[in-house]
Amino acid sequence: MTDDPLLPCDLLIEAGWVVPVEPHGVVLTDHAVAVSGGAIIAVLPRAEARATYAPAQTVSRPEAALIPGLVNAHTHNPMTLMRGVADDLPLMPWLTEHVWPIEASVMSPEFVADGCELAVAEMLRGGTTCCNESYFFPDAQAATYRRLGFRALVGLPVIEFPSAWAASTAEYFDKGLEVHDNYRRDSLVRLSFAPHAPYTVGDASFERIRMLAEQLDVPVHCHVHETAQEIEDSIKQHGQRPLARLDRLGLVNERLIAVHMTQLTDAEIALCAERGTSVLHCPQSNLKLASGFSPIEKLRRAGVNIGLGTDGCASNNDLDMFDEMRTAALLAKGVAMDATALDAASALRIATLGGAKAIGMDDRIGSITVGKQADLSLVSMDALETQPLYHVISQLVYATGRHQVRDVWIAGQRKLADGELVDMDSVALRAKAGQWQRRIAAIGKQS
Amino acid sequence: MTDDPLLPCDLLIEAGWVVPVEPHGVVLTDHAVAVSGGAIIAVLPRAEARATYAPAQTVSRPEAALIPGLVNAHTHNPMTLMRGVADDLPLMPWLTEHVWPIEASVMSPEFVADGCELAVAEMLRGGTTCCNESYFFPDAQAATYRRLGFRALVGLPVIEFPSAWAASTAEYFDKGLEVHDNYRRDSLVRLSFAPHAPYTVGDASFERIRMLAEQLDVPVHCHVHETAQEIEDSIKQHGQRPLARLDRLGLVNERLIAVHMTQLTDAEIALCAERGTSVLHCPQSNLKLASGFSPIEKLRRAGVNIGLGTDGCASNNDLDMFDEMRTAALLAKGVAMDATALDAASALRIATLGGAKAIGMDDRIGSITVGKQADLSLVSMDALETQPLYHVISQLVYATGRHQVRDVWIAGQRKLADGELVDMDSVALRAKAGQWQRRIAAIGKQS
Repeated sequence: MTDDPLLPCDLLIEAGWVVPVEPHGVVLTDHAVAVSGGAIIAVLPRAEARATYAPAQTVSRPEAALIPGLVNAHTHNPMTLMRGVADDLPLMPWLTEHVWPIEASVMSPEFVADGCELAVAEMLRGGTTCCNESYFFPDAQAATYRRLGFRALVGLPVIEFPSAWAASTAEYFDKGLEVHDNYRRDSLVRLSFAPHAPYTVGDASFERIRMLAEQLDVPVHCHVHETAQEIEDSIKQHGQRPLARLDRLGLVNERLIAVHMTQLTDAEIALCAERGTSVLHCPQSNLKLASGFSPIEKLRRAGVNIGLGTDGCASNNDLDMFDEMRTAALLAKGVAMDATALDAASALRIATLGGAKAIGMDDRIGSITVGKQADLSLVSMDALETQPLYHVISQLVYATGRHQVRDVWIAGQRKLADGELVDMDSVALRAKAGQWQRRIAAIGKQS
Repeated sequence: MTDDPLLPCDLLIEAGWVVPVEPHGVVLTDHAVAVSGGAIIAVLPRAEARATYAPAQTVSRPEAALIPGLVNAHTHNPMTLMRGVADDLPLMPWLTEHVWPIEASVMSPEFVADGCELAVAEMLRGGTTCCNESYFFPDAQAATYRRLGFRALVGLPVIEFPSAWAASTAEYFDKGLEVHDNYRRDSLVRLSFAPHAPYTVGDASFERIRMLAEQLDVPVHCHVHETAQEIEDSIKQHGQRPLARLDRLGLVNERLIAVHMTQLTDAEIALCAERGTSVLHCPQSNLKLASGFSPIEKLRRAGVNIGLGTDGCASNNDLDMFDEMRTAALLAKGVAMDATALDAASALRIATLGGAKAIGMDDRIGSITVGKQADLSLVSMDALETQPLYHVISQLVYATGRHQVRDVWIAGQRKLADGELVDMDSVALRAKAGQWQRRIAAIGKQS
């Protein structure tokens, strides 16, 4: 006991368990996290926290686990408005008869903004505090994330096809660079280049992206080796596998966020490890579209950084990172034929710090570490479905549902309080989703 | 309009959508189900129902989908008390260093009854109304299911090892037959023979099971072809693959519920189809224990009846049939390399009618059909996570969480009302789980 005066702080979160993710696999019992100015200023035992801080606000949940906010490191959030519009179809009929005709009809800043807004509500309710986005109208996306106080890396799309966003390759670059300029100093929203895929982007565009990404110091977010077909086609057209072609063009480096990567040779795995390229795993999307199995345990053992993403709602059909984390942990074992593959702590890691690193934000988010931003999720463990409770991390990965998330903060701002969205109107969101549903369903009927 | 008097019925459930499962893939909008004497007496448009019936009780949810109660067709419910006690381990260390030492210490009627009770609470909260059980102390299980009004097929275990339940093979049979006698006329609880697996049960016991199963007209519930190792060992020991051995012993017929079946030749698939043997699929367990991939789409196309199960909570780690259904639908596509494999309607079917058929109860449950028992689950579709809503069955399988289940009936008795257990005490359940947790965790520390 001392007579030292208590220190002020904005927020003290007390939890039955704090799972910092870094150090790996650690669970701190009866701990607290102190937050000031949007950042984590201390992680310490609850009793010590109470003797040290005089917080402006205290949230205390002895029955809950505090984890870093989940990072959905590959998504197409506007497609939330197309959730389940067409399922159980092969890729090409799905795209040509459903997704593309709908997109051609609705693509607009309003569609993109409304889709992102619904996605943010779903992400917050499921403990996700950051997303890595790739879609059209990045200006509308970025504005939505900024307005809602949601952390995002927004991709500047590049594809050799005209769209409502840009009529030519040149315009994709011009408009993208303009959006980038508008968010240079934003604390929550950052930009990346998002060339769609090797099969839809030409060499010249990739070379320009490489140069610009270096100049602007931004990541490059690209679908790579999603299917075996993609590899075959590339060999026919370019005489090279897509990753080899990207390497020839100078893109296989620590900036590259290579999404899917279901088809990989051992040499390609070694190349990713050597270059610091991150692999972005979307297990449910890969299964649903029958794209193939990414060799996640091999990648992990080779030292490749791995992030986790849900992909868009038209092919998943949700933004549920708890379910995705569980699928990743389960599927890695089946694919590696090894029950020890991607253990629970490693699954939680790819869903947090791995994703943060992939998108170049691991200096600010991804773990509960002093100095990092207070992007945090508090998950109740007292549901009957999580009784008994032997190991907190195992329970989080293998038995916890996203509806057990009670509170969420981004940069210290509370976004979910006791399961309720703090600054979003659920009724209005539902009504808006209904309006888009009627409009999109009508397109389906015409086509 | 007529002057006919309204007909009495016990219960009228009005739903935005009724998904009867049979006919396949059908969604009835704004329909109602009338229930009397525990059975479904009518399925009809809501307006017509209101003009026809004067129900004692009406439950009306225009925002919800009514589905048949889910059938968890392979589980070891007492193991719910061991949820997540040891994860991410190879099968043998998991069994020999964790599961078996714990079971040796705690196995008792109390452990079995308390585990089943917690499992029933979890199953009801997740829309499951029937389970197919295989564990020790079937008397304690059966008594628990009967007391709680939960529908179950309880396995009479046979294994060539002594346990707290039975000291010898003869005693397994004697005690099992006694339990069977006690439940001959039970409306909810039925018994099966549950030989553990070909590698733990000898020829003589299998022959006796075949004979008794025929005499008593009960199913035979057995783990078969769970791993490649099991096949190898059987060839060494018996000169035959396990399914061939079971066939030699006369067990491959419509009574057999063959669980797991990850290793199957085309001839074995054809044999199951020809004999009417059901395959019980546990995709999450197969992934988590790295057992292999069951060729579900091949089985389905061959006409084999398929049920779905979670397996026990020590290897899953939950009894979540929504998650299991989603995993089944996704994994089947990856394994078949075909995005059309196990479409949403077929996934819902294996989780209901397929399981009911496997356990010999498809004459009473598994679909919303006049004359069948009123085992029903009402699932809210108005969560933000299920907006927008284009296709109800797709949404149920690919985007719905079990926490969206609002009401559940078994034989017309309401077991869950607006998400709350009707006749179970959640606080007491949690306390009891905590007591077992302390006891079991202490065993872990000693070993």
